[in-house]
Amino acid sequence: MQSLVEKAEVLVEALPYMRRLLGKTVVIKFGGHAMVDAGIGASFAVDVVLLKHIGLKPVIVHGGGPQIASTLNRLGKESVFVEGLRVTDDETMDVVEMVLGGKVNREIVESVQRAGGRSVGLTGSDGALLRVRKKIVDGQDIGRVGEIVSVDPRVIVSVAESGFIPVVAPIGVDDEGLTYNVNADEAAGGLAEALEAEKLMLLTDVEGVLDSEGKLLSQLTVDQAQKYIDEGTITEGMIPKVSCCMRALKNSVSRAHIVDGRVLHAVLLEIFTDDAGVGTLFVP
Amino acid sequence: MQSLVEKAEVLVEALPYMRRLLGKTVVIKFGGHAMVDAGIGASFAVDVVLLKHIGLKPVIVHGGGPQIASTLNRLGKESVFVEGLRVTDDETMDVVEMVLGGKVNREIVESVQRAGGRSVGLTGSDGALLRVRKKIVDGQDIGRVGEIVSVDPRVIVSVAESGFIPVVAPIGVDDEGLTYNVNADEAAGGLAEALEAEKLMLLTDVEGVLDSEGKLLSQLTVDQAQKYIDEGTITEGMIPKVSCCMRALKNSVSRAHIVDGRVLHAVLLEIFTDDAGVGTLFVP
Amino acid sequence: MQSLVEKAEVLVEALPYMRRLLGKTVVIKFGGHAMVDAGIGASFAVDVVLLKHIGLKPVIVHGGGPQIASTLNRLGKESVFVEGLRVTDDETMDVVEMVLGGKVNREIVESVQRAGGRSVGLTGSDGALLRVRKKIVDGQDIGRVGEIVSVDPRVIVSVAESGFIPVVAPIGVDDEGLTYNVNADEAAGGLAEALEAEKLMLLTDVEGVLDSEGKLLSQLTVDQAQKYIDEGTITEGMIPKVSCCMRALKNSVSRAHIVDGRVLHAVLLEIFTDDAGVGTLFVP
Amino acid sequence: MQSLVEKAEVLVEALPYMRRLLGKTVVIKFGGHAMVDAGIGASFAVDVVLLKHIGLKPVIVHGGGPQIASTLNRLGKESVFVEGLRVTDDETMDVVEMVLGGKVNREIVESVQRAGGRSVGLTGSDGALLRVRKKIVDGQDIGRVGEIVSVDPRVIVSVAESGFIPVVAPIGVDDEGLTYNVNADEAAGGLAEALEAEKLMLLTDVEGVLDSEGKLLSQLTVDQAQKYIDEGTITEGMIPKVSCCMRALKNSVSRAHIVDGRVLHAVLLEIFTDDAGVGTLFVP
Amino acid sequence: MQSLVEKAEVLVEALPYMRRLLGKTVVIKFGGHAMVDAGIGASFAVDVVLLKHIGLKPVIVHGGGPQIASTLNRLGKESVFVEGLRVTDDETMDVVEMVLGGKVNREIVESVQRAGGRSVGLTGSDGALLRVRKKIVDGQDIGRVGEIVSVDPRVIVSVAESGFIPVVAPIGVDDEGLTYNVNADEAAGGLAEALEAEKLMLLTDVEGVLDSEGKLLSQLTVDQAQKYIDEGTITEGMIPKVSCCMRALKNSVSRAHIVDGRVLHAVLLEIFTDDAGVGTLFVP
Amino acid sequence: MQSLVEKAEVLVEALPYMRRLLGKTVVIKFGGHAMVDAGIGASFAVDVVLLKHIGLKPVIVHGGGPQIASTLNRLGKESVFVEGLRVTDDETMDVVEMVLGGKVNREIVESVQRAGGRSVGLTGSDGALLRVRKKIVDGQDIGRVGEIVSVDPRVIVSVAESGFIPVVAPIGVDDEGLTYNVNADEAAGGLAEALEAEKLMLLTDVEGVLDSEGKLLSQLTVDQAQKYIDEGTITEGMIPKVSCCMRALKNSVSRAHIVDGRVLHAVLLEIFTDDAGVGTLFVP
Repeated sequence: MQSLVEKAEVLVEALPYMRRLLGKTVVIKFGGHAMVDAGIGASFAVDVVLLKHIGLKPVIVHGGGPQIASTLNRLGKESVFVEGLRVTDDETMDVVEMVLGGKVNREIVESVQRAGGRSVGLTGSDGALLRVRKKIVDGQDIGRVGEIVSVDPRVIVSVAESGFIPVVAPIGVDDEGLTYNVNADEAAGGLAEALEAEKLMLLTDVEGVLDSEGKLLSQLTVDQAQKYIDEGTITEGMIPKVSCCMRALKNSVSRAHIVDGRVLHAVLLEIFTDDAGVGTLFVP
Repeated sequence: MQSLVEKAEVLVEALPYMRRLLGKTVVIKFGGHAMVDAGIGASFAVDVVLLKHIGLKPVIVHGGGPQIASTLNRLGKESVFVEGLRVTDDETMDVVEMVLGGKVNREIVESVQRAGGRSVGLTGSDGALLRVRKKIVDGQDIGRVGEIVSVDPRVIVSVAESGFIPVVAPIGVDDEGLTYNVNADEAAGGLAEALEAEKLMLLTDVEGVLDSEGKLLSQLTVDQAQKYIDEGTITEGMIPKVSCCMRALKNSVSRAHIVDGRVLHAVLLEIFTDDAGVGTLFVP
Repeated sequence: MQSLVEKAEVLVEALPYMRRLLGKTVVIKFGGHAMVDAGIGASFAVDVVLLKHIGLKPVIVHGGGPQIASTLNRLGKESVFVEGLRVTDDETMDVVEMVLGGKVNREIVESVQRAGGRSVGLTGSDGALLRVRKKIVDGQDIGRVGEIVSVDPRVIVSVAESGFIPVVAPIGVDDEGLTYNVNADEAAGGLAEALEAEKLMLLTDVEGVLDSEGKLLSQLTVDQAQKYIDEGTITEGMIPKVSCCMRALKNSVSRAHIVDGRVLHAVLLEIFTDDAGVGTLFVP
Repeated sequence: MQSLVEKAEVLVEALPYMRRLLGKTVVIKFGGHAMVDAGIGASFAVDVVLLKHIGLKPVIVHGGGPQIASTLNRLGKESVFVEGLRVTDDETMDVVEMVLGGKVNREIVESVQRAGGRSVGLTGSDGALLRVRKKIVDGQDIGRVGEIVSVDPRVIVSVAESGFIPVVAPIGVDDEGLTYNVNADEAAGGLAEALEAEKLMLLTDVEGVLDSEGKLLSQLTVDQAQKYIDEGTITEGMIPKVSCCMRALKNSVSRAHIVDGRVLHAVLLEIFTDDAGVGTLFVP
Repeated sequence: MQSLVEKAEVLVEALPYMRRLLGKTVVIKFGGHAMVDAGIGASFAVDVVLLKHIGLKPVIVHGGGPQIASTLNRLGKESVFVEGLRVTDDETMDVVEMVLGGKVNREIVESVQRAGGRSVGLTGSDGALLRVRKKIVDGQDIGRVGEIVSVDPRVIVSVAESGFIPVVAPIGVDDEGLTYNVNADEAAGGLAEALEAEKLMLLTDVEGVLDSEGKLLSQLTVDQAQKYIDEGTITEGMIPKVSCCMRALKNSVSRAHIVDGRVLHAVLLEIFTDDAGVGTLFVP
Repeated sequence: MQSLVEKAEVLVEALPYMRRLLGKTVVIKFGGHAMVDAGIGASFAVDVVLLKHIGLKPVIVHGGGPQIASTLNRLGKESVFVEGLRVTDDETMDVVEMVLGGKVNREIVESVQRAGGRSVGLTGSDGALLRVRKKIVDGQDIGRVGEIVSVDPRVIVSVAESGFIPVVAPIGVDDEGLTYNVNADEAAGGLAEALEAEKLMLLTDVEGVLDSEGKLLSQLTVDQAQKYIDEGTITEGMIPKVSCCMRALKNSVSRAHIVDGRVLHAVLLEIFTDDAGVGTLFVP
């Protein structure tokens, strides 16, 4: 009996968080380890369904780099990168679309539905959700890699209000209707801004942002984050994610988190506890 | 960290129950020990607020026998009972109304609000919620004790849909607008039927319905319950509550429970577990 | 036949008033003689039901000083007053709540329902309607006597829009959920302001505000009223009511009346005639 | 003061009638003396506006025989009648439409608006409200005189729900869109049936239906009315109106009245009294 | 088959216009030749029904000078004009109302309904749609000729939203409810302004606005139009229509057209082509 | 000018069809030649956007056999067929999902959006739209080929009501969430039934159903179709499509068409003409 009462206490502890977040949008970038470990993937799906049920509006954005690489491999196509971005010719873009929109996206939709939710898979071309233009990197044309110009969130709002959990593949379209590969963190940030989300949550394969001694920084203001970047404490691999969080906070998003996606139920923990043990929280 | 993950698991376990009960009405008779023990009372209030928050529609009906007795005592008025029912002259009825409607009801409203909910106190005369007639016991007129003739649940529906938790004192009115004392279990049962509630839950000061060897019967069908009554296994004190549950099941209520109100978070446990450790469940 | 036609003319005369007040809120302080004379009480209830029916939104606030006094008397408890305010220890507050919320409020609800309306009794603790703090009078702590800090009118709006006539007992709660006795005129004024009422109507046991020769002042501007108070024409007993009207006019209420509650159908007369024969009208 | 209270009593007496008729449709045939006496006409308009205001849905249908005759006269056109019905050639029909739709209808609309209502004039061709076919009388073609085939009340419902009082000229259209003159009582009856009106009220220039000794019959069942017709007590001039009332009662209308339109406020009196002094009431 | 495909191309060409005008109001002054030629009249009705069907909100305003003149003639009444305006004594106004409201208006309603639409005929007195005052021309009182003071478009909105096409006769009312003759172009302009119409379209019996060499001016800015008036290129007969278009453009109407009503389907052509072959387009 | 008037006549001719189909659902199977010819594909997209604009609810279901075959080819994977159905092992299914959901579906979404519509791509796994089970052909397990068990059209209804045109890839899920390849004609038929569509339209690469002499059968009843199948006139390749139409007509779909998708604007022609020149119409 004692343990039952303890369980009840857990629910009771969650109550104030539920109340505070009722009706709020949470955009979650799902990727990395969590996406390839079946157990973590299933726990992620359950977390999202739980959020939906208790009245939040979760939106999932996913990446898919490893899956794209593996398919290109099978097709005997070599991957070239410029500043960490995949050079994307038309043939590669075909593969990107098929893998992200036709495979990875569908698998996440299915796992959410297996967890008891109702889900709809989308790409940034549905309802012209993500309008992009070609990204020029250091003056170089690296093909069909896009940067976000504007977001029309109506298709998200429509399916979310009908009770579905939207799962978005990071593909954008330009004014001519040509599709482009978009960085998934950027896509998640852009959606969070357009939806005026309460939270942006980026799942990664590290503990969070670390200080120069490798200790987790559990909370950072925008100014502190900028200072750490300027000082070189926050290093290359992490800078894009941190910048993404900083920009979101400047554009109507209330909270941004970089969360350790390798932890079971990382999403729930971040939502329902004040303990910042599972990542780094950015505040304005 | 481990314990955080365990907490998350508790939330996840609750998910299927939440989904099943979304939008459903639960009528809870609150009384006995739970009403006089401050800790239990506060845990009860939190449980109800939690149910409201996750999308159920809780309705509280309360008694108040001990409080009535103590006030009558202070006024030097003796209590007389016939078949367990208080003989209620006009002066006594004045006290009943003042204590139930003016004191006990208000205290529960306040405790729910302290737990973070928004609550409205009602009596059966608000919106003519409980229409009654004088109860005749063994041919005896025992004064203003009423039995329910009809229930007009519109006032409950109105406040519940506006986000409030209704707290109902068991006072009814007859066709002339004269008020009567009503048994709180009967009032809860009548409301559950009129609201086509998913659950009727009667909090008591015992473990539940016991068999002839004093062992808890964790589940009973209507037929089994009748058999136990006929055999004398279910004894006098418990018969009215059991009958109340049986009648509710015959009239559009899906589940009825007699729950041990002395247990912390008894309401949550009953809602969120399949383990029937905290009382007796009646099924059709 | 002639008299029938005259009756029709009365209805026709009322038409422009009906049109002007359609959908408007009228807050009425019910008290004094009207509350203890059965005939006047019944005529008051009918008036309120009529207002509701033709499309106004009446809200009743009641007092209950005499009933409280009489119950305290029966309990052998002496009443002490400071500046006209009852010193209210915890035991007294218990009685105040029971009498106002459990007895007087219920009787008014019942009389409105006997007149054909549907009514809901409320106190200022329902839905945290009246938030108060302890009133300090001349530096003296006189116990649980509250002054209004804020009003959350949602519970009123909810029941009024569902077709019920709200009847409010003047009890407030502080931030800790502790209840306080509130002056009924102040409560009515506070509700009128929060509801942006068209009219505030205070029923009293006198003809209205009188000038220095004892003649009724049928209309007063806020400035005139202030002048009469400064000159001493408006005397002590009447000052709180007059101040209450003046404050309401400064806070979004369009008209305030002090009405002679001893007159049959005083409310209807004030609503449906331009003749100011039944009291004093305050205008900005 | 006494007379003020009496006025209030009149309003109070009207309350149960208001409550019973809330939201109900009343179709009133306006014609005869009432239409040509300015005073009676104005009192009629006020009555209708009052009904609208207190929540009924009045619909006016008017005739215009005398005005048509006078215009035909001015144009030097002779009137021919068969069985009381005007033989209506195309030229006459032009005059009928201009007088009913362009003059009489407009005047009633204006008088209702002067009484404070908002009104819309319609004919049976608006929205194909009254679908008719040519009436053959004793095998004779008497031109463009129509009998109702079907009623499409949507245009009435649309304007009535937007707060307007519909005023209908009795002109119908056949399947080819050709217009026809329709008897105003029949048109009123047809509308009452299609709108499932609570009341059909035919204003006439007599006291009501009289018995063989010239005494008013204040109430008649359908069967009694049939018997009086069979016996010849109800004579020729009155038979069409009585038949119209009888048919309406058989087709979803609850009450039908033949009312003395020469009495001031005849409509209000019939609505707000049980005294049947101003005409004859037909009940099923 | 080829011709079928060409037909489909026509529909496809219309698509961008449909999309641009969805939900927009178009006020069309119908008059002159189009109103007396049966074929043109029928094609006009079909055009309007088509606009309604594909999601525009057409409103028709009509004139009726010739029909009024002919009826006055038959009645032996001479027509007198001052500055092109008919001197309108009370007897003449009676004829105006009967002809416009009782005949011309009804015929248009019927022709729209024969084309498959649902239509409601209105005059400016319905719902006090057109409030006017007496027009004084060169200091002269020319009787019941009105100029628009204000427009209350609610009756139009109400019937249009219920799926009907409003057909408005240009009759206004003054504050006393007296009716006045209003110029139909002015009435159309006034309605277009009050309804914040997308388009005002005036059908005439000429090709459009011509330059000094008799060549059609297919597009004019407000400034250009003013210049042509100042230079005398736009002559007397056309000035009122041009002024009407210019005023509309200054008051929230987006486009104004003077269209050759003698052309079959003139309305559709103007709506669905960029070719300005059928009249003159005014732009801000 | 003449040709402009002819264009207007085309619009006018379309009016009765528009009226009849307002608000109705049309499910269109898009495939074959039309899908690979850029010009036809663009004309198809425009047709669908036009239907959406004028108030119909088009739903597109597409195939993709050739594109799947070509990708499998590139991957060096051989295609095996049993009774015309592709044997689909897990690796093949991966390709099917990527090609249908990630490539073909996206291209159609984009082409609809280039034509001016707003579109959302879906597969049968979104919102568990198409629930299937493994199809057994002649007792043989041919892998992940599914037959429809049930359809949950809520995701279609949700996006269609928000103004989007749904484009559905024929992939279904079984109870375990495993995906299956579904025949596109069957998927279109199943959706049409579940949506109670007005029309089911299957685009093919032939003229329609031909008789034994190769002449087009422009209309067939269900009984006639069965007879032609029994007689062997309708041959193997066409039988599945014909059966699909027949089943739809038996299950709440009003009309089914087999349409020659090689004709420009084939969809519009079928919708807006009575001439059955572009295919075969099936009627109950």
